[in-house]
Amino acid sequence: MMADTSKKISELRQDLVCGDWVVIAVGRGKRPHAFSGAPATFEEPREMCPFENFSGSDAPQPVLQSGSVSVIPNKFPAFAKGVCRVFSKEGPYTFADGVGIHEVFVLKDHARYIPELSLEEMSDLIRAYRDRYKTVSREECIAYVLIFHNHGREAGASIAHPHSQLVAMPVIPPDVARSVEGSKRYFREHGKCVHCEMVQYELVSKKRLVDENEKFVAFTPFASKIAFETRIFPKVHQSVFEMLEDGDVTLLAEILQRSVARLKKGLNDPAYNFFIHTAPVGDVSRYDHYHWHIEILPKTSVWAGVEIGTGIEISAIMPEEAAEFLRNITV
Amino acid sequence: MMADTSKKISELRQDLVCGDWVVIAVGRGKRPHAFSGAPATFEEPREMCPFENFSGSDAPQPVLQSGSVSVIPNKFPAFAKGVCRVFSKEGPYTFADGVGIHEVFVLKDHARYIPELSLEEMSDLIRAYRDRYKTVSREECIAYVLIFHNHGREAGASIAHPHSQLVAMPVIPPDVARSVEGSKRYFREHGKCVHCEMVQYELVSKKRLVDENEKFVAFTPFASKIAFETRIFPKVHQSVFEMLEDGDVTLLAEILQRSVARLKKGLNDPAYNFFIHTAPVGDVSRYDHYHWHIEILPKTSVWAGVEIGTGIEISAIMPEEAAEFLRNITV
Repeated sequence: MMADTSKKISELRQDLVCGDWVVIAVGRGKRPHAFSGAPATFEEPREMCPFENFSGSDAPQPVLQSGSVSVIPNKFPAFAKGVCRVFSKEGPYTFADGVGIHEVFVLKDHARYIPELSLEEMSDLIRAYRDRYKTVSREECIAYVLIFHNHGREAGASIAHPHSQLVAMPVIPPDVARSVEGSKRYFREHGKCVHCEMVQYELVSKKRLVDENEKFVAFTPFASKIAFETRIFPKVHQSVFEMLEDGDVTLLAEILQRSVARLKKGLNDPAYNFFIHTAPVGDVSRYDHYHWHIEILPKTSVWAGVEIGTGIEISAIMPEEAAEFLRNITV
Repeated sequence: MMADTSKKISELRQDLVCGDWVVIAVGRGKRPHAFSGAPATFEEPREMCPFENFSGSDAPQPVLQSGSVSVIPNKFPAFAKGVCRVFSKEGPYTFADGVGIHEVFVLKDHARYIPELSLEEMSDLIRAYRDRYKTVSREECIAYVLIFHNHGREAGASIAHPHSQLVAMPVIPPDVARSVEGSKRYFREHGKCVHCEMVQYELVSKKRLVDENEKFVAFTPFASKIAFETRIFPKVHQSVFEMLEDGDVTLLAEILQRSVARLKKGLNDPAYNFFIHTAPVGDVSRYDHYHWHIEILPKTSVWAGVEIGTGIEISAIMPEEAAEFLRNITV
């Protein structure tokens, strides 16, 4: 018997990695274009830009120059070097200093964003991500390194000049811990990597496929937490991002840039975040079951009480429909 | 030796219930008033309001009238009645119909918000929450009932007329599952309720206390996930919200209304959400270790890549400073 989708109000889908449920509200179904808002790109005069005028005694010393990308310390860091692993108590509670590292990847041009970069410039950025990851993850105290990018004020970008960031922290953040734990459990129960399982299924099913090349695949997750969420995985198992080989940098640059460009073109330049989820720092063999990937999350809706109270977004578009829409955008 | 707070960049604090870490970025410390933005209250003509004109054949049938509050079915539900516990597979994935209930608590007046209600009207609302909770949680298929309130567009309110909502769903949502699991673990390890532990400590320490009365206490959590986050707990252990006694309705109404009014007065009417976290539906003895409470979360910042990629907000105010600020607001 065919499912009577005309009467279906919503669908619950279980995340294969962490076991969480998401809700796709079919009954509220919107057409893809209904998710477009005002463009997220904002202008800031070049003479006001903190990333344009690096001369003078106040100028930050780049910690890395990767072609067109300069990496500098964050002027207002969330984490900074210090004495690590000193845990203090207040009554029943535990706290510690926020020891770590916070850096900024500054793109060369003040107003040329990721979709407008040359493939070489985009590759410079990926190479900078990987090289700083390698260096920073070997520092004392570091349990996790997160590399991320914010576009638009609604996604938390406070400076218009295109840039990415790296935070290295002394604890494993909760969302990563749950993902790592889930993939470990899956490996124990099924004897294989849960992410490889998804990658292989998505490549065959093609229902949620957005893009692929020789080494990488981009798809909308079956249990998408956000409308138009896109994830990029290496096709072959690789637990830590720093294992990315020189020869694959350009292929990753290409698929990431194209995925971002699709959102920009299809949804009228939405604000978005992307970040790299990789295994925690430390003995690689402990995290063999993990599979690094990039998550791209456009801001197409506002989280209300139901989302904040449950951790579940009531998403108004099916991941299959989102994938078809994105796949058909020519970039 | 005194801690050298002048050099401290940030503090990591561990949530006593779920074990997650949060980050308080002291180095970016802002004064409380710096969190104020434009007022969140928005106007909608009364003649356009879907909650103002209940006559005609299209009028929703209230499922409950609690004094000044009408409870009606949500016209665009995220969950609706259906056949429950039918799980289907697509490849490695699991999904199910979104079976459940979605209702709206409509306040009588089009433009009188929670801080402006009389104590009697506010009590009507609390009583309606509890009475619908009782009825709905006894329906088939229901694993969890979330009651929540959105104020302002940035908090997801799409209709200006003040209203709250109830969603009853067939799965336990991830954030609740983790909180329940954490309190169970704490009970196993320490032989007591983790929330009672916090309540007792906060009442004595007073550092994060915002308000209290005979039966309830409001404080900013030690590991606040959001700036100015406020939680309200019954002082005496109670696992499920529906155990709220008639005699305590007014005391809860009073402290919730005052907590919301403090945010409005102190932070220039921010958008906010509040919701009730209670034990899942079912055999109460299974969730004895849980302690229901209300979380009030103002929207004072935008979540960026670092928050979305980690699940940790880089909060720019110490919970102790937020509590002092809120405590000193006369409402």
